[in-house]
Amino acid sequence: MTSSEKGILIVLSGPSGVGKGTVCKALRDCAPNLIYSVSATTRAPREGEVDGVNYFFKSREQFQQLIQDNQVLEWAEYVGNYYGTPRKFVEDTLNSGKDIILEIEVQGALKVKKSFPEGVFIFLLPPSMDELENRIVGRGTESQEVIRSRMSVAMDEIRMMEHYDYAIVNDHVEHACSNIQSIIVAEHCRKDKVVSKIKQWMAEVK
Amino acid sequence: MTSSEKGILIVLSGPSGVGKGTVCKALRDCAPNLIYSVSATTRAPREGEVDGVNYFFKSREQFQQLIQDNQVLEWAEYVGNYYGTPRKFVEDTLNSGKDIILEIEVQGALKVKKSFPEGVFIFLLPPSMDELENRIVGRGTESQEVIRSRMSVAMDEIRMMEHYDYAIVNDHVEHACSNIQSIIVAEHCRKDKVVSKIKQWMAEVK
Repeated sequence: MTSSEKGILIVLSGPSGVGKGTVCKALRDCAPNLIYSVSATTRAPREGEVDGVNYFFKSREQFQQLIQDNQVLEWAEYVGNYYGTPRKFVEDTLNSGKDIILEIEVQGALKVKKSFPEGVFIFLLPPSMDELENRIVGRGTESQEVIRSRMSVAMDEIRMMEHYDYAIVNDHVEHACSNIQSIIVAEHCRKDKVVSKIKQWMAEVK
Repeated sequence: MTSSEKGILIVLSGPSGVGKGTVCKALRDCAPNLIYSVSATTRAPREGEVDGVNYFFKSREQFQQLIQDNQVLEWAEYVGNYYGTPRKFVEDTLNSGKDIILEIEVQGALKVKKSFPEGVFIFLLPPSMDELENRIVGRGTESQEVIRSRMSVAMDEIRMMEHYDYAIVNDHVEHACSNIQSIIVAEHCRKDKVVSKIKQWMAEVK
């Protein structure tokens, strides 16, 4: 409404293989005003990667300090490196009135919800369980056992959907993007977002 | 999601003079799948008015029976005639999977909320209090006293905004329509609307 209105944190999550990355990439074209959360990591930068753009590159000591200072909304260790979501980048973006989107796996999203319950949590679903299996199988030449195990993890993740605000079926990327954009518009129209402005009006009329 | 999904009741309300009717009229063009709630009334049909299209025309006895049978979501008496929202038309539309919109003044909307808390309640706001006053003044040649009294009523109505889910500023009709459409899309993406379908999937995979 006004420039003083805070932005919205949108958390996009869903089971492994559902296409979160593809949807996020497409959103960059159709929602150019959306800011993308930048993760912090202790892994070394790869060629061409820019600090503050691809990642915030940190030493282990720096990262541990961030954790201690409650400056990461969530973090995890993966193949010996820390990965996490820096609180400051998210909060600075929201305070500047811009919306920020965070693409993250299901467990991480639930951790973010604890620190940021006012975020908008969107769960991306496959068009069907068969289609999810196709996508998991299609990723490589894994054994039946590995595929079964991944499907079982995916089903556990889908059960986490109940902790989210919205659920979108990723049948077509454009359709998913358009639904996410509608959700963002609708969230900006929520009464609580407007009520403080109106109270100001009422005070002025009196 | 599926044809078995129920429709959504959208209740559009706001203070007198805010332009509810104009927005609703514009919605007919930009949201052709939306069904418009038809009121029941005891007033006589005017020339060209069709029963079931403009109104459901009822005798006083019929209307009183509807009230007694809890078959009107809200009703009021105005210049000697009853006006109300028949429950059956709303419920039949929702059960057929279609969304229905009800344009109604603030007090009526709050009554509907009691019978239909699962509805989506949208409050239409003027761009500013000055603009609302302009619209109220612009309606005719009312005295300062009448205008003051209408503004006071409008302010009381705006205070009722807190009972609504969304608030939209009617700065431009197209913008208000587009926001309402986004809200409808977002509401269809709400997790609770999708969760039953997913439970079915999960059962099939097991």
